[in-house]
Amino acid sequence: MDFRQRIDDAIAKAIAHGQLGTPPKRLATALEYAVTPGGARIRPTILMSVAAACGDRDPKLANAAAAALEIMHCASLVHDDLPCFDDAPIRRGKPTVHRKFSQPIAVLTGDSLIVMAFEVLIRAGVSNPSTALQLLGILSCRTGMPYGICAGQGWESEAQVDLSAYHMAKTGALFVAATQMGAVASGQEAEPWTELGARIGEAFQVADDLRDALCDEDTLGKPTGQDEAHARPNAVTQFGVEGAVSRLKDILGGAIASIPACEGEAELAEMVRKPAERLNPVTAPRTIPGE
Amino acid sequence: MDFRQRIDDAIAKAIAHGQLGTPPKRLATALEYAVTPGGARIRPTILMSVAAACGDRDPKLANAAAAALEIMHCASLVHDDLPCFDDAPIRRGKPTVHRKFSQPIAVLTGDSLIVMAFEVLIRAGVSNPSTALQLLGILSCRTGMPYGICAGQGWESEAQVDLSAYHMAKTGALFVAATQMGAVASGQEAEPWTELGARIGEAFQVADDLRDALCDEDTLGKPTGQDEAHARPNAVTQFGVEGAVSRLKDILGGAIASIPACEGEAELAEMVRKPAERLNPVTAPRTIPGE
Repeated sequence: MDFRQRIDDAIAKAIAHGQLGTPPKRLATALEYAVTPGGARIRPTILMSVAAACGDRDPKLANAAAAALEIMHCASLVHDDLPCFDDAPIRRGKPTVHRKFSQPIAVLTGDSLIVMAFEVLIRAGVSNPSTALQLLGILSCRTGMPYGICAGQGWESEAQVDLSAYHMAKTGALFVAATQMGAVASGQEAEPWTELGARIGEAFQVADDLRDALCDEDTLGKPTGQDEAHARPNAVTQFGVEGAVSRLKDILGGAIASIPACEGEAELAEMVRKPAERLNPVTAPRTIPGE
Repeated sequence: MDFRQRIDDAIAKAIAHGQLGTPPKRLATALEYAVTPGGARIRPTILMSVAAACGDRDPKLANAAAAALEIMHCASLVHDDLPCFDDAPIRRGKPTVHRKFSQPIAVLTGDSLIVMAFEVLIRAGVSNPSTALQLLGILSCRTGMPYGICAGQGWESEAQVDLSAYHMAKTGALFVAATQMGAVASGQEAEPWTELGARIGEAFQVADDLRDALCDEDTLGKPTGQDEAHARPNAVTQFGVEGAVSRLKDILGGAIASIPACEGEAELAEMVRKPAERLNPVTAPRTIPGE
């Protein structure tokens, strides 16, 4: 089974568990709406790729870890789209959760998905509690305060922003979680995989900046020009389009160099190299699928 | 050390962990604001009482479980107070988080506290992963969908409400978590402790209805008459004040009868009996501390 199928199956299983018995219907429907059909599933795909490169020692745990990570990411999108943050009308080409349902449902959808992310891993971990606890530790560390995506979003309420901490937490955190959790799910140490995740996160940030500056709303499935509108730092503003693309290639080169020795090292390097090879100022934005 | 001290120390330790390094300050401050000085800490006190009645086999894990449960409860209060839900101006006698800080900070405070609740248990669980995973399973089940407090709040967005599912999820869930987690932290099975938690939850709901109907805002530290204002079901409306008090005594009697055989059975029964003995229509509201 390919990664995408394994990821989507694991997410569908988690959502089905959340609909057991007779739950409140609108909230149950909104949970499914928020995670399907899904974007590129980039983070869980990276997690799966690292788990495979490390020998895919425990596929069930890797599937659960991938679902947990993607569900957490979806939770963050639902809350980031709320009127008090980005007030986004569309996401992945359809109305955002608060527009489609309501603000109360959107807040509860995010909350329920955060809990569900942990729950997926907790349930899958019964046969291997010690590894499951390590995976849960990475997920919580990269989601909450002070190092996770909550912290990243929190920086946007500060008058003085620590830019490196902001980017690392806001975008980098879940990529670090992806590489670390992939390795741990296959019985490896987390730490040697930190740099790969951080570099992919950096690359993703630059690619996102390029998309935000160059794509139209139809291609992207969400509003563009948001960084400029919210006066957020952006690699294109800083380095220009060609400069940003060149920076992206450098970062991906560093990512490849950081891959720890493992049985699937070559395939993993290829996975990181492929998008980099396709990149140039004209095609760059279109080769990176939207979220 | 008494329960209150153990609970408050464990919560303070969790908050300090969330402030490591250089986190975004407003969010870090808001997390502390949302959990201190705290209300009656009823749920973690019940958890500690059950753990003690079962021999307090692993005090560190019990402390972490109690902190996790209270932090989760505080997260739910912060989100419930948001303008799109209760739009509450005060909580525990001070401005709610969104009034004191901002809506974005309030959403992120709730999110960060949910994550922190899991994280506290994950970190404490290293020495006993299997028990920690059980505790985490109870916490997630009683927080998310379809059986937890998120589901409870979700019922308020439904046209047709399943009242028993609503009360069980909205109020009962964290009390069931309290008794089950207390037992599990001391190496006992969770299931036999479910009814005690459910009964205490029911009693708490009736007591809350009495407070809402009879107390003034200063005594309660939050707005009163909210059930009437939001047309929510309420035991006082249904049975009158004397009827509600009589019902409360019945429920607590059932709670005492449900306590499983354990070394501290008598002390536990005493803990449940005490508030029931003090109850009468006049003093009832003042003997139950506000949250």
